[in-house]
Amino acid sequence: MCETKVYIEKDGKKEEIFENVIDIQSEKDGFFLKDLFGEQKFIKAKIKYIDFMKHEMVLTESEGDK
Amino acid sequence: MCETKVYIEKDGKKEEIFENVIDIQSEKDGFFLKDLFGEQKFIKAKIKYIDFMKHEMVLTESEGDK
Repeated sequence: MCETKVYIEKDGKKEEIFENVIDIQSEKDGFFLKDLFGEQKFIKAKIKYIDFMKHEMVLTESEGDK
Repeated sequence: MCETKVYIEKDGKKEEIFENVIDIQSEKDGFFLKDLFGEQKFIKAKIKYIDFMKHEMVLTESEGDK
C-alpha cells in the first residue's frame, strides 16, 4: 500500500500534518488531502517534493512565493 | 512498491508521459520527475491530483492558470 505521510516545511523544519493519505486534489492555492479513513483536510500550500519510495510528501506554505 | 504513472491532461484528455516515477521535485513553474532507472524529466505543469492507491498522478499545463 502506498499511503503517504504529509509534512509541511516551516522555517526549515519539517512538521508532520497528516498521515495515511491516499489522494490529493488541487484546489486554488492549496490541496485537499484525503486519508484512508475518509477524513479530509484542506491545506493552503504548495508541493515541494514527493518521495514515492519513502511515502513522504513535503509541502511549503503558499505565501511568500519564490 | 509505489512507482507512479504520470499523465498530463490536455483538452480534457489524459496522456501518459512517464512511468515508474519514484520522486518529484518542484522547480519554478514545473516539476522534475525521476523514474526508477534514474531518468529525469522536467515538466512545466501543475499537479491536478494524485491517487496514491492507483499509483496515478495527473498534471495540467501551467499556462492558462485558473
